Amino acid sequence: MQDLFGFIAAFLTTIAFFPQLLKTYRTKSADDVSFAMLITFIIGLFFWIIYGIQSHSKPVLFANIITLTLNSSILYLKLFYNNKYSGT
Amino acid sequence: MQDLFGFIAAFLTTIAFFPQLLKTYRTKSADDVSFAMLITFIIGLFFWIIYGIQSHSKPVLFANIITLTLNSSILYLKLFYNNKYSGT
Repeated sequence: MQDLFGFIAAFLTTIAFFPQLLKTYRTKSADDVSFAMLITFIIGLFFWIIYGIQSHSKPVLFANIITLTLNSSILYLKLFYNNKYSGT
Repeated sequence: MQDLFGFIAAFLTTIAFFPQLLKTYRTKSADDVSFAMLITFIIGLFFWIIYGIQSHSKPVLFANIITLTLNSSILYLKLFYNNKYSGT
């Protein structure tokens, strides 16, 4: 039961970034999304991945690899659209 | 060493939301921040808190209480500014 809650928690806090990625892709804007948040979060996710490897925790490892992929994509789109539409 | 990485990871993915909260407060706008992301993430954090209580993990518990507080504040500001400045 304890593991079930942990599994649901990891699933939700991982997939949460998918609607953000979709929204950013659709609206072509992430001006309101904090650059400092994305950078800090992404560095944190690298540490979670190291922790997942060292503690042999596959759920921690895989959940954070997916979260890292989603957040890196959001950061990439933010920088891409910022650059493309700067001045407008 | 393993715990150190976990501690750094938890610290970074927790404080990451502070610059987002500040930015939203300063710009009075969170239009680009996905509502679905905030809701899904917040529900996920509740499950992390339950998991932290059940597994007697104080770091999981406290990190997620802070993350929940920050994200709930971002959601509140998003809804507040959306409502206040709607139509502009």
